[in-house]
Amino acid sequence: MIVTVTPNPAYDVTYEVASLSPGEVHRVSTVRRRPGGKGVNVAAVLASLGTPVIATGLATTGFGQDVERIGVRAAFVAALPRVRSTLAISHGPTTALWEPGVAPRDPVAAAAALEAEVDRLLVDAHCLVVSGSLPPGVDPALPVALARLAREHGLPCVLDVAGEALGLAADGPGVVLMPNAEELAELCGPSRSLVEVADASRRLLERGPTMVFATRGAEGLVLTTSEGSWHVPAVPGVTGNATGAGDAATAAVARGLAAGHSPVAVAEEAVALAATAVAAAVAGVVDVPLYLRLRIGVTAQPLTTEGTR
Amino acid sequence: MIVTVTPNPAYDVTYEVASLSPGEVHRVSTVRRRPGGKGVNVAAVLASLGTPVIATGLATTGFGQDVERIGVRAAFVAALPRVRSTLAISHGPTTALWEPGVAPRDPVAAAAALEAEVDRLLVDAHCLVVSGSLPPGVDPALPVALARLAREHGLPCVLDVAGEALGLAADGPGVVLMPNAEELAELCGPSRSLVEVADASRRLLERGPTMVFATRGAEGLVLTTSEGSWHVPAVPGVTGNATGAGDAATAAVARGLAAGHSPVAVAEEAVALAATAVAAAVAGVVDVPLYLRLRIGVTAQPLTTEGTR
Repeated sequence: MIVTVTPNPAYDVTYEVASLSPGEVHRVSTVRRRPGGKGVNVAAVLASLGTPVIATGLATTGFGQDVERIGVRAAFVAALPRVRSTLAISHGPTTALWEPGVAPRDPVAAAAALEAEVDRLLVDAHCLVVSGSLPPGVDPALPVALARLAREHGLPCVLDVAGEALGLAADGPGVVLMPNAEELAELCGPSRSLVEVADASRRLLERGPTMVFATRGAEGLVLTTSEGSWHVPAVPGVTGNATGAGDAATAAVARGLAAGHSPVAVAEEAVALAATAVAAAVAGVVDVPLYLRLRIGVTAQPLTTEGTR
Repeated sequence: MIVTVTPNPAYDVTYEVASLSPGEVHRVSTVRRRPGGKGVNVAAVLASLGTPVIATGLATTGFGQDVERIGVRAAFVAALPRVRSTLAISHGPTTALWEPGVAPRDPVAAAAALEAEVDRLLVDAHCLVVSGSLPPGVDPALPVALARLAREHGLPCVLDVAGEALGLAADGPGVVLMPNAEELAELCGPSRSLVEVADASRRLLERGPTMVFATRGAEGLVLTTSEGSWHVPAVPGVTGNATGAGDAATAAVARGLAAGHSPVAVAEEAVALAATAVAAAVAGVVDVPLYLRLRIGVTAQPLTTEGTR
């Protein structure tokens, strides 16, 4: 089983309106509301692949029930007065409004309760994923503290976090990092080429992580381990909605590591599953036959870096 | 005590954004969220005047708790899967998006439970108010059925409803109606002058109501009872936010009738309280000294109609 942690979840709300006229009153014809946040999205991808998964994090009582309704087992800690919304107004184009996170009633107690819940869930787990931002007031060391728990249970921990939490996570022994281009630049300075991405990742490994999956959008991803670096090119010619690609890649990494696949195979699976998510008709629902077809065509290529030259 | 019923409540949500650019992503700087709906707004005005009031209606468990937090006693029936939102995006001007109402899980059981709750609350009450729309699926005869309960308890019932529910309410014996210009036109055809408003109201009295307070915006209101018709001109020179004026007028009518004031005095109070609401710095909060000052200047004038000529 895989445990995903979403410290700062959200409801993804979509309003359908005929048109959007600033300054006017609009009657919304349809409201769609789905529990989300990066860890929940990762869990939804895993569930749609048939991989046993449970989603936890900080939320309200009702939020966990809503996550169960989309087919994902949930065990959220009821610590937030309210779960924020991210609103997409669909009027031909889409106008998005992202609410700020809501602080827990007691941020210290909330973090402690979440650590206790994760510790309990890890007893039956094969991998831990911590994804997304933290609510206001919560210690940015929470993701690395959760990674420490996974290590105590002898399990891999995939961290897809940003900002101050990523800086602290990069010092976590044994963690698996998934920085995107912007996050890697924040940690290590800008990388102009894939070789520079590999060099930056290698510098990160010296701080604590065992693997870095540096996601590069249209360029695919760069995997770096103590054995070397590999580039996995993105699947060419895939068009669609790129929103869920990162969470699909994270799901693939967690699933591959939990199953004991080699890091290079895991990197290939991540690129293939991200492409499947981009091509998906319905966000978060994986077309398994398409994934298997794309998976065949994805191959990692070794990268020569300063450290391996 | 006054009982207000809000069959189809809403959260009034306000997003503060620097600007609104259709097609773009916006980070919302501040989110304000206040329980609303017409009956809740009426109750909030009454509470801010120090008048004992309890708000009921169809909602979720959490909604009643949120109403209590704004200083209004609440006893909502938990019958809706979710309470809709009305979103106001404030970006200099305001862009509004109104979600449709949410159907109760079991509309027939929900209506029956609300009738039972109102019947219980009316034991200690002096007036019943039913305000606003109905959730999808709920019988439009619900407001008039609630009015029948008030009549059985020997209490006045103020109905501020629209559409099919208003048509049925107009046949309710003993009810007090508060149609605005559009609603009166829907019931009786268009009225070009205040005398025509009084004539239309007189025709309504033949169907069942004891009083009609026909609100006319900038023209004030026209009261019609079996004794005659009166015009109460609006307070001149009041500018501000007109949104809460109708609910303030309803609050004044309920409060005046509960206290046994004459219908003419009640009509004057309604116009003065509506003007106070328009001038309010904070929506829903009544400036009592201002109300008392405006009240002195408001005087009803008899209207000669075909029926009284």
